[in-house]
Amino acid sequence: MPYQRRRPLILVTNDDGIGAPGLYALGSAMTFLGDVVIIAPKEEQSAVGHSITIRGSVRALPYTFSDALASVTAVAIEGTPADCVKLALNTLLHKRPDLVVSGINRGSNMAVNIMYSGTVSAATESSIRGVDSLAVSLVEGPEGDYDAAARYALAIARKVLRSRLPRGIVLNINVPPIPYEEIQGVMVTRLARSRWEESFIEGVDEANQPCYRYKGEFINLDAGRDTDQYAVSHGYVSVSPIQHDLTAHGCLGVLGTWRWLKYLEPSGQHL
Amino acid sequence: MPYQRRRPLILVTNDDGIGAPGLYALGSAMTFLGDVVIIAPKEEQSAVGHSITIRGSVRALPYTFSDALASVTAVAIEGTPADCVKLALNTLLHKRPDLVVSGINRGSNMAVNIMYSGTVSAATESSIRGVDSLAVSLVEGPEGDYDAAARYALAIARKVLRSRLPRGIVLNINVPPIPYEEIQGVMVTRLARSRWEESFIEGVDEANQPCYRYKGEFINLDAGRDTDQYAVSHGYVSVSPIQHDLTAHGCLGVLGTWRWLKYLEPSGQHL
Repeated sequence: MPYQRRRPLILVTNDDGIGAPGLYALGSAMTFLGDVVIIAPKEEQSAVGHSITIRGSVRALPYTFSDALASVTAVAIEGTPADCVKLALNTLLHKRPDLVVSGINRGSNMAVNIMYSGTVSAATESSIRGVDSLAVSLVEGPEGDYDAAARYALAIARKVLRSRLPRGIVLNINVPPIPYEEIQGVMVTRLARSRWEESFIEGVDEANQPCYRYKGEFINLDAGRDTDQYAVSHGYVSVSPIQHDLTAHGCLGVLGTWRWLKYLEPSGQHL
Repeated sequence: MPYQRRRPLILVTNDDGIGAPGLYALGSAMTFLGDVVIIAPKEEQSAVGHSITIRGSVRALPYTFSDALASVTAVAIEGTPADCVKLALNTLLHKRPDLVVSGINRGSNMAVNIMYSGTVSAATESSIRGVDSLAVSLVEGPEGDYDAAARYALAIARKVLRSRLPRGIVLNINVPPIPYEEIQGVMVTRLARSRWEESFIEGVDEANQPCYRYKGEFINLDAGRDTDQYAVSHGYVSVSPIQHDLTAHGCLGVLGTWRWLKYLEPSGQHL
């Protein structure tokens, strides 16, 4: 088992920025498991989704942590979480990491929300490259404890390094905001069916043009007992396997029978 | 059939910006099918993924097209494609659209690239809201023809308005860059397994800090004859059903048997 022969290399990143407390807790936990390198955005990058910087340059600045992370190599990137992972895997790391861990995000990343999440996109990016990847988020709440979340992240990372994930799979982990002792365990879940109910607040800008400010409320549409939402609301750490192949394989058959060309204008007829 | 009783309402958006020729061609084609409203980013927003603007305000500016689109209501948004769709569905449109069509993108959106695509994210955003949605892209090439792509988009949109899509499904359409008469037809496909081979170009900024410029080469890892890549390279319009539920349902079983808690530190032991 390779993890016994040498210490695994673990890349830690996030979307809240390199100074975020969740990153510190996660990075510190991972030092118990392997050699940690932290390559994370210089500034907060929440809700950037899977943005990448394809124009202009991305700056990379050495960063120094204190205490538990004082000896860890760290780089702050002026870019998105996906940029961090691309740059790490292609250029900054001198060998392929055994694991990429993204987080601990300040706030949940469950259900449809993972579409918008920089935390999850960082992990997805590395899974595309075939590296086992975890995204870790701490659900909002007054008793939320990054150290409790980090301990579960460490346990899950240990198991993943032993058993390896199926190729292309990310584990999306959400920890409930309750004390460590009250966490009920780990539940493997699917993403809840859900959506946001948005109500933009209309205003006018200095030129008297209409402008809109985002205001949203999350709606869980899913009463299932096997969802991420269910798990965390019942005190469990939710672990959802997610994939980057978005093909709706179940629809290929029926769409294959549709007669598309019937609806095409005759060749001579111009629009 | 509702489309015979009243003209459907069709929202057209994109990520290349409201002045892009692909948007004009797509909007013009859709006027043959229904009442068109165009709500698109003011500026190019490629590779923004599923970014949304949750801080600050998004400005909405009236926009006037000429010729075939002179009578169409259009709004330019200072925001991302996903912002455009959210704002349209929640605030700007006075009724729910029957169809959202995003594109025609300048360049392909196939395989793993749809993760980064603003064009696809706009369509995904509306599919989350239960609106049938298409993303349309024209593959790069000297003979690429937006009007040919728009004709196929129109045919596919007609079929979708008749038959309706399964809930939560987006059709991701890629048109090969060949003359209309040479297009072989429509092929229903899955996304090819693929990745980018990146090589960042290292430089230094004015403060002598290292900075990196993105350079990538697309690698198709998939020899299947049922992929989007295969279809367009053989002269077919590729139609891939994609979904926003990223759960890897096939992995739930095996992960459910993993003994996660075995790897948790004993309760008394602190990190």
